[in-house]
This record gives sequence, C-alpha cells and structure tokens, in this order.
Amino acid sequence: MILGAIEAGGTKFVLAVGNEKGEITEKISIPTRNPEETMKEIHDFFKGKNIEALGIGCFGPLELNKDKEKYGFITSTPKLAWADYDILGNLRKNLGVPVEISTDVSGAALGEITFGDYKDEHTLLYITIGTGIGGGYVIDGKIHNGMLHPEMGHILMSRHPEDTFEGSCPYHGNCFEGMASGPANEKRTGMKGTEIPDDHKSFDYIASYIAEALMSYILVLSPTKIVLGGGVMGRTRMFPEIRRILSEKLNGYVKTDQLGDLLHYITEPSLGTESGIKGALALALMAE
Amino acid sequence: MILGAIEAGGTKFVLAVGNEKGEITEKISIPTRNPEETMKEIHDFFKGKNIEALGIGCFGPLELNKDKEKYGFITSTPKLAWADYDILGNLRKNLGVPVEISTDVSGAALGEITFGDYKDEHTLLYITIGTGIGGGYVIDGKIHNGMLHPEMGHILMSRHPEDTFEGSCPYHGNCFEGMASGPANEKRTGMKGTEIPDDHKSFDYIASYIAEALMSYILVLSPTKIVLGGGVMGRTRMFPEIRRILSEKLNGYVKTDQLGDLLHYITEPSLGTESGIKGALALALMAE
Repeated sequence: MILGAIEAGGTKFVLAVGNEKGEITEKISIPTRNPEETMKEIHDFFKGKNIEALGIGCFGPLELNKDKEKYGFITSTPKLAWADYDILGNLRKNLGVPVEISTDVSGAALGEITFGDYKDEHTLLYITIGTGIGGGYVIDGKIHNGMLHPEMGHILMSRHPEDTFEGSCPYHGNCFEGMASGPANEKRTGMKGTEIPDDHKSFDYIASYIAEALMSYILVLSPTKIVLGGGVMGRTRMFPEIRRILSEKLNGYVKTDQLGDLLHYITEPSLGTESGIKGALALALMAE
Repeated sequence: MILGAIEAGGTKFVLAVGNEKGEITEKISIPTRNPEETMKEIHDFFKGKNIEALGIGCFGPLELNKDKEKYGFITSTPKLAWADYDILGNLRKNLGVPVEISTDVSGAALGEITFGDYKDEHTLLYITIGTGIGGGYVIDGKIHNGMLHPEMGHILMSRHPEDTFEGSCPYHGNCFEGMASGPANEKRTGMKGTEIPDDHKSFDYIASYIAEALMSYILVLSPTKIVLGGGVMGRTRMFPEIRRILSEKLNGYVKTDQLGDLLHYITEPSLGTESGIKGALALALMAE
C-alpha cells in the first residue's frame, strides 16, 4: 500500500512516500511558504506517485472535532497566512485521496506506538521540547483529543528558586513553554542556543521544569511510557537529570513498576527524528 | 436487574441496592472499621437482596491492572488495616456475584456520565475537593487508567504570592491537596473547617489553586465537561471565583465553545451527593 505523509511545521514541511509497515521510500523537506505556494509544491511532489491515502501531522491549533464545520482547519495560529486555513479540505481536493489529520506531536506519539519500539504499550505520551513545547497522548492506538487537542506545553510552572527569568510566553509568562523552550532560554541567557554550553546553569532550571511538568503529566494521565523529543533533549545531561529530579519530586508517592525503572520509562524516541513523519504514515492508514 | 453498589471511603462505606437505570431502592451508611468487620456488615446488608452484580468505587491507591497478581487490592494506604487487602477478591467470595472496582472518584465521574445530566459528553472530568483531592476521567463511557489510576490531587502548585502556608502533604508539601484540601486549610488557619467563614482570605488562595489545577487538567486532558464536588466546593463563593480566575489564567490561549461558556463547562455534580454511589451502580453494569 503506497501512502503519503506530511509533517507540517512552522518553518518546514517534510513530505514523504512510504507504506503500511512504516517504511519510507522517498522524503524531501521544503520551507513553509504561504498556503498556495506550499500546496503547489505538495501537489508536484506527490504527482504520479500513486498514493492511496495521506496522513498529516500539522502545527496548530487545529479544529479536530469532526462535528464542526471547520474540521481540519488550522485556526488561530500567529503564522497569519495559515490562520483559518482549510488544510484538510485543500489536501483532499489537491491530491484526490482520503486524508487524516492530527497535531504534529500527536502524530509523533502515534508514530512511536505504531512503528517504533513501543508497540505493546497501552498508552504513550510524547513530549517535544524544542522551539515550542507540546504533547500528544495515545490510548490503545488512538490519539486522545477532548474538546480540543492537548496544549500540554502551557501548564504553569512554579519558579525554580534561583531562576529570575519572567518567562517568554505571551499568554502565560511562566508556563512550561515560556520557561523551558529553546527560545525561552535564548531570552533568559541573551545567547544564541548554539552558543549556550551544556553545563550552563540555565539547564539546571530547565531540567527542573521538565521534571515538574512530567510529574503533572504522570499524576493526571498515568502514561505507561513517556518519550521525550525535540532540540532541548539533545543536550546530553538532560535525561539523567530529569529522571533524578522527577524521582525526588514524586518522593515515592506513586508506586509502579514503571517508576521503579525510570531509565526505560522516560526515554528517547525509538524512531529518532522520524517519529513525526512515520506518525503521518500511521495517520494515512486511518484515513477514510 | 438488581445491582449492588458500594462507595468505600476512609471514614464510611455507603452500601446501596439499585438497578440498571441508576435508581436506588435502599441505601445505608456504615463507619469504616477493619476489613473483617466491614466485610461482615456488607454481607449482612446484601444478604437475601438477590443482587446480580456489584460495583465498588473505593479509596486507594488500588491495583487496577488486570494483568497483575494483586488486581483489585488496596495497596499502600496509610489506613494500615486495609493496606495490601484484596477487597475485590473478598467481595466476590463474600457475595458470590461478579464485581467491578475502580477508585471512588473515577466512579463518581462514571456516575455523572452514565446517570447524570452529562450523558452526551465525549469526555468528563470529575474532581473532588474535600478531605482529600482526587480526579477521575471518563472517555467514551470508559474510565481512563494508565499505568495506575490518576492521582490528580498531587500536582504541584505555584504558591499564591500572599500565601505563606508551606503545605500539608507529607509527600509533596505544596501540591494541590497539600494547599487546597479541607485539612490543609485547617492547618493553614489553625481553625476547624466549620469555624472558617466563607469570606476568609484563605479561600482566595484556595480558589486560585483550584483554578490553576483546572488549567493544567484542561491543557493536558482537554475534557469536554468538568464537574467539581467535595466539601470545599460547598462554599458558595467558590464556583464564580474559580471561573473568573481560570479565565484570567488561560488568557484566551485556548479557544473552544466550552471555554466561552464556563458556567456550563465547570459545574456542580448533577447527581448531588450521589455521583459516587450511582457510579458504583454503573460499575456493577460492567462487572464480569
């Protein structure tokens, strides 16, 4: 079965052709322009490739309630050319195949549980910590959405006692994204991300915020597996420190096999940087 | 269909007989003693009542993973007589009928969505704020559990700027339960709960903590309906203040129909004080 996949981000779109086993046969990356130009490039890429269905993991916010008139629209994004844009409808029209849509990060969660090492997990939480922070949650192979997709990056943080940074989120100041994303730390330190060394004090704060957020996710969702991706997680000290601080914060209150083995419970993406695009292939399998 | 229901709490057990419509025909309340004495009282109450199945919403923590040897046990509770007690197995043996078990607060969530005014909701979050704080979440009529049932009352809070109370939770200090439960406020004020007037400053802090916790639950779970029960919510000023502060904190970031109508989104239990026991009837319907 030939499937199309799109991972749509604010700076680039990844386009791929693959199959129902999660194998990718062709992949390109194009910069995010305005919808008309990008749609044309998508059309040109998939033309003649005989895809039978398409999946897209897309930046948001998205309308994902199928009962709504604007189902499949990108809604109130600050990327104004894409605000209120019917991306699902235009892809269906453009490509003439069934299309399934979800958020980029829910797609990544689905990719890990469908094609990664975590196929046997009852539930999986995928958190990306990079330019933005977001989370996707899969239960029994199905992406969880309620009234809207989750917006997990915006939960409020209690300030690290030594951190005086007010937070960079224009909506919430000191939310998780406002305190621990890449741009937040550039603002905190006044340095470019690539210039901040791994042993910089700011990463003590960030590890602490990530651990605090994970504690909330564990207490609210109780996921059986947590996968952390995104640029900030590329810093080598992050995983061990997050596990150590999380363990201190939980303080033995919740007792499960998983929490007794944090090394395997809180882990890297098994698909490397391809969780998202392979998740889009998994979405294509669900397209109707 | 004649069904048995138990709402098992740390201070009392409510026992009831009812039917598949959620109608209760008989109900008593007994103090929580040790397991042997309480089991005998349960046996005496249900004897000759011809119940076909039983549901129990129980204080925890519980082992709810059916693959585990200790499925249906109360595990590490501070109520030592009940720690490591096989409540599910003993009820099955005692009553000779199929029994289904969940937490008290997941039971209440199930009661509201099965027999209350919220039957049409895709998801429902029930939070109780009283002697303890806990939450239960139902998705498409099914209680959500991951590696364990949720422990939503223990997410960390950022301190209200005027609140100097260190928190009463022995595990986490300033978690939601440690800052906003009834016993937390008795410790903060040095007064008995019944002596603290509604206009006491401490309820400003508590309303703020509840709003902060709801913000986290909304961003992580995105429930389509939130029901708040428990003694603290009996204070008349709480609902309006929580809605006001939540709206300020979210600051327009998440846009949904529900958040545009907080009066109906964040609401009282439609079953009054019977969410839990009627939830136990709904659990009985699932017993195998």
